[in-house]
Parts: sequence; structure tokens; C-alpha cells
Amino acid sequence: MSMAIITYRPIGVIRSGHAHPEKTPIQPLYAKGCQGRAEIFPEYADGLRDLEGFSPVCLLYHFHRSEPMRLIVKPFLQDVERGVFATRAPCRPNPIGLSIVELVGREDHVLHLNGLDVLDGTPLLDIKPFIPCFDRVDNPSGGWTEKIDEETACRRGQRSA
Amino acid sequence: MSMAIITYRPIGVIRSGHAHPEKTPIQPLYAKGCQGRAEIFPEYADGLRDLEGFSPVCLLYHFHRSEPMRLIVKPFLQDVERGVFATRAPCRPNPIGLSIVELVGREDHVLHLNGLDVLDGTPLLDIKPFIPCFDRVDNPSGGWTEKIDEETACRRGQRSA
Repeated sequence: MSMAIITYRPIGVIRSGHAHPEKTPIQPLYAKGCQGRAEIFPEYADGLRDLEGFSPVCLLYHFHRSEPMRLIVKPFLQDVERGVFATRAPCRPNPIGLSIVELVGREDHVLHLNGLDVLDGTPLLDIKPFIPCFDRVDNPSGGWTEKIDEETACRRGQRSA
Repeated sequence: MSMAIITYRPIGVIRSGHAHPEKTPIQPLYAKGCQGRAEIFPEYADGLRDLEGFSPVCLLYHFHRSEPMRLIVKPFLQDVERGVFATRAPCRPNPIGLSIVELVGREDHVLHLNGLDVLDGTPLLDIKPFIPCFDRVDNPSGGWTEKIDEETACRRGQRSA
């Protein structure tokens, strides 16, 4: 049962100004001011009721243009090989992306977003509200990322320079 | 392209003490002390390298025993109907769960976890490190959840009383 293939259908599509994977910011942190939309298919629009009270929201989406799976990768931020599950690289066994982005507003089945680090045309799988009492984390340990200085992270993260 | 069916295969299975959906805590916040494991299939074990420096980690998994999709739901915390995307209810169009849990340690392809709010036997889709500089959120707006008092949330969230 648990080993069966799992099938999903997109609930909508993400529209952004990012047309090229190699120029797309790697995280919302490096995508400040990048506006875009999540266009939910009309048949799912009822599910958006009351979402407009939340910001940020968590987008789960399919990395539709990711490279084939690799288990060992060099992350964007560092030229050191890491296990793919210790990175956010797209070339994962199941290429699911997670971005926590600002919800600016909703018009019917369209969400207006800010801080969008997602390629234009990306299939959207799910939207979850960020719920402060559930999702706030105290004293996280950031593993290898704690050794990256801010200037390097910013330069490599924006990818537009 | 983006509208095609998307297929994933589990990368492992989550083992917990939660055998019944109706008694499973609804979030890690209400699952403190609930220990368990993520057993990654050996063919993906190389992808775990360096993950042990991170805690918490984000688990993405398939709600394999969720009820059929409903777009309007009464969330666990409140007897008011909400759009499913404004809740974390499992009966979503794509029943993907997200839990941010403490990583206690790793033994080869087994992760030891704490604060586990996931049913035993749940198929695991992905593991992502929680990266403090990416995932820390300032000043979130919690929508309808901000009106739930802590005692009610705790009582309803633990579900074991």
C-alpha cells in the first residue's frame, strides 16, 4: 500500500517573471519584490475561502523543469557535495518545491504573491496557510548553511547579477 | 505539460506510535514527546548525508488514509466552515502533509524524530532541511487561527484526552 505510486493533479499554475531556471532566485529571501500570481483552476476556487487572512502562505509545487534526480549535489550556496535531502536543490527523487511567500491579496481564484522564487508555468500542488503557532521554530540548527556568510549567500541566492 | 498527471514514489515510510487517524495529534506542537522514525529506503540513503546537522527538518508525506477531498471543511480547531486551503486538513485535492519535526539523530538510513504528528505507515515523499535564514518568518498573519485561544487549541490539537 504505502509503496504504491502516488498520483497528483495540479490545482493551478504559478505565474511569475522568472522564465529561466538558471536566473530564478533560489528562495523567497532572495526574491524580494518579485511579484506574481497563483492561478487556481476554477473547480478548486471554493477551497480558497478565508485564505486571504493569512500571510505568508506555503506553496507546494512540482519542479517541472528540474534536472534528473541526483542524491549527491553541490548546493547553490556552497561548492561542497551534500546529500540532496540536506539541501533544497530541485533534483530530488520527488521534485516537490516548497516556498513560503507573501500573500498580497486574492481576487476570486487568483492569489497575488510577493517574494516569488518560482519559475513561470510551474504546476501548483497545494497551498497551506502558515500558522504562526504551528510553524514558528525556536532555536533551529542550520547545519552546513550556518557557515555561509551573508554576502556570499545573497550573491549566489539572487542569481540575477 | 503543466496540467499532466504527476507521479511520485515514496522514498521511505514513517514509523510512529499513532495507529488511529482520529487519535493522532494534529501538529508537532501537540505531539511533544511523540518519538518515531523515518525509514528511508536504502537506495536513497546517500541523499541523507549531512542532514544530521539540521533540526528541525520538514517532512513531506502522503496522507494515505485521508478522507475524500472536500473543498469546504471544519478545521480541527474550530467549528466554522473554511476553505480547505485555509486549513491544514488532510482531505485536500492533493493530500500532501507537511510537518516540521525535531531530528534527534540519524543511523544510516533511519532518522530518529521527536514531535511526530504523523500516522504509522505513512509514505514519505521528501525531506527538506529547515534553513533558518530561508524559513524564519517575521510578523506572520494567522488569519482565523489567531482567534483560537490556547487552551482550546491545546485540547483539540492533542486529541488524546
